[in-house]
Amino acid sequence: MARVHNFGAGPAALPLPVLEKAQAELLDFNGNGMSIMEMSHRSKGFDAIIKTAEANIRKLMNISDDYAVLFLQGGASHQFAMIPQNLLLPGKTADYAHTGEWAKKAIGEAKVVGKVNTVWNGEADKFARMPNPDEYKLTPGAAYLHICTNETIGGVRMKAFPKSSAPLLADMSSEFMSRVVNVNDFAMIYGGAQKNLGPSGLALVIMRRDLANACPETVSKFMRYQTHIEGESLYNTPNTWAIYIIKLVTDWLLGLGGIAAMEKLNEEKAAILYSALDSSSFWKPVAVKDYRSTMNITWRMGSEALEEKFTKEATAAGMIGLKGHRSVGGLRASIYNACPRESVKALVSFMNDFEKKNG
Amino acid sequence: MARVHNFGAGPAALPLPVLEKAQAELLDFNGNGMSIMEMSHRSKGFDAIIKTAEANIRKLMNISDDYAVLFLQGGASHQFAMIPQNLLLPGKTADYAHTGEWAKKAIGEAKVVGKVNTVWNGEADKFARMPNPDEYKLTPGAAYLHICTNETIGGVRMKAFPKSSAPLLADMSSEFMSRVVNVNDFAMIYGGAQKNLGPSGLALVIMRRDLANACPETVSKFMRYQTHIEGESLYNTPNTWAIYIIKLVTDWLLGLGGIAAMEKLNEEKAAILYSALDSSSFWKPVAVKDYRSTMNITWRMGSEALEEKFTKEATAAGMIGLKGHRSVGGLRASIYNACPRESVKALVSFMNDFEKKNG
Repeated sequence: MARVHNFGAGPAALPLPVLEKAQAELLDFNGNGMSIMEMSHRSKGFDAIIKTAEANIRKLMNISDDYAVLFLQGGASHQFAMIPQNLLLPGKTADYAHTGEWAKKAIGEAKVVGKVNTVWNGEADKFARMPNPDEYKLTPGAAYLHICTNETIGGVRMKAFPKSSAPLLADMSSEFMSRVVNVNDFAMIYGGAQKNLGPSGLALVIMRRDLANACPETVSKFMRYQTHIEGESLYNTPNTWAIYIIKLVTDWLLGLGGIAAMEKLNEEKAAILYSALDSSSFWKPVAVKDYRSTMNITWRMGSEALEEKFTKEATAAGMIGLKGHRSVGGLRASIYNACPRESVKALVSFMNDFEKKNG
Repeated sequence: MARVHNFGAGPAALPLPVLEKAQAELLDFNGNGMSIMEMSHRSKGFDAIIKTAEANIRKLMNISDDYAVLFLQGGASHQFAMIPQNLLLPGKTADYAHTGEWAKKAIGEAKVVGKVNTVWNGEADKFARMPNPDEYKLTPGAAYLHICTNETIGGVRMKAFPKSSAPLLADMSSEFMSRVVNVNDFAMIYGGAQKNLGPSGLALVIMRRDLANACPETVSKFMRYQTHIEGESLYNTPNTWAIYIIKLVTDWLLGLGGIAAMEKLNEEKAAILYSALDSSSFWKPVAVKDYRSTMNITWRMGSEALEEKFTKEATAAGMIGLKGHRSVGGLRASIYNACPRESVKALVSFMNDFEKKNG
């Protein structure tokens, strides 16, 4: 069977050359006579993998040594809990922008720990837009400001990021390494790997080292960033397979010319799809134009019955993962880094045919 | 290159048929036109995998519906933190048997939360033995009793388990599914997957459902067992690849006749190696006989120089992972379920030759 066009929101498409290399090496990694899955996380072989993965990430994102690069488990949901435990100190307030479902989850975990101020709220707009940098009503002396820069469900992303005297923390799960960002503008950037970086089961955390120092004694050792910084991601056995795949994905990204080149390609892919959506009232794009995501593209159609017909026929035509998130319905195409331009073109061609038959 | 004989303590050897199947299916799982790593954790395809993995585990270990079977991330170290947060309620004391390095880590995390009573301590014996069931000095009304049934570093295991009126919780990471146990004797059995079950990046948790009800409100949603029981391991995106491999490993175990058959094989393998170690004073087994592990077999030699020569020549002969844990030195052969009898025989043959040349 040929490969499908995969528009799933995550776990999502991986680059074909990465999969082919992982397949070729699965039984015998680099002449070691065993699978990468069978290698000790403290072996020389694995050390080279994790070090290369980290070096690739530092190179791609231009990360200075003031920042630690951590490969943790648990994905972004785990980070939602770790962040306030480490950084929302007693008596302080944490600022959160409420931009959608993922921000909501992050806010929920912060409220377990301490006081939260929602400094922007997109609920009234049904999360169809994002805050502009000047719209945040920041708390003076806040412990930190937390943002989610791209919301997969609404299909919106921040064009620009806020400035804040408090440390700026960003969940970039669904747009990690899809656009050039200046890491020095952030105290922490993190995200689950399963959208743009690799398989599920891993969170990539880029964190200014000094941020980890003030964690209260009441926090478990496992939940402290300091533990994992000191252990260089090997305090406990990490997800070695995911780190290996991330190494391959970042090799691939570097080979394509890095994030600037990828961003250009992502903008081209998104433009192809948005211009189809804008071409006729048959399609009803959800996100407000200025805040449209280049990763998750959302739209509605005239009726739910038509939407269902669309996803059914698309699936039959080898295009999968187009159903919108169960909380909002509609359609969604996730076109992450690994989604090839050909898949986007195939989708647009299918859409044109579908409109002719049903419009 | 031929496959090495892998005696590593974890991540460890996986069954060759499992690796071959994972390799064959890597680009296209079951005719879906994509890799298992690219499939949504909420897709029908993955639902069948996680449900089969759970059903396999329930069948292998004879687990009733009173227990939840959870696939969590973070390994045993994460569980060390989750357990006291969920179960060591204010004013209560938790009983822990201090049987070695892993017990110590578990105790450390419990002390962050509340009061710990060390009900048995093997430190004076350098952890060369385990407690007998009648040796625990239990606390009346304890929140729970925590044991680690097999310590990888000392190479000791519990022949029999304690009886306790408090819930009995067991870390079985390094001997999961290697011997028949009666799940109903435990309130919880858990372990990292990377020794006997699959790749790293996953903890398997078998937990009596009622145990999860009393978690204090101060615990983050992510760290609550109840969250993951209600979400059926899909509250957040799980490590889908590891769950897939565990499904294949448990298929393989069932095909071999289940845990009773595996236990018999494990005893045979251990007997081959221990009888070599007992045959001459050239080898100095570490663990006290009655508590010898069938999974991690530890010994010393006349000098550290000789030990170093041994591991060096063994590595050259294709036998890897034989160095003892860095905290204790010496030699260790981990012969988990997936380590074939042929590997143990090859090791013994190498040992005989080595003794002839150096004895």
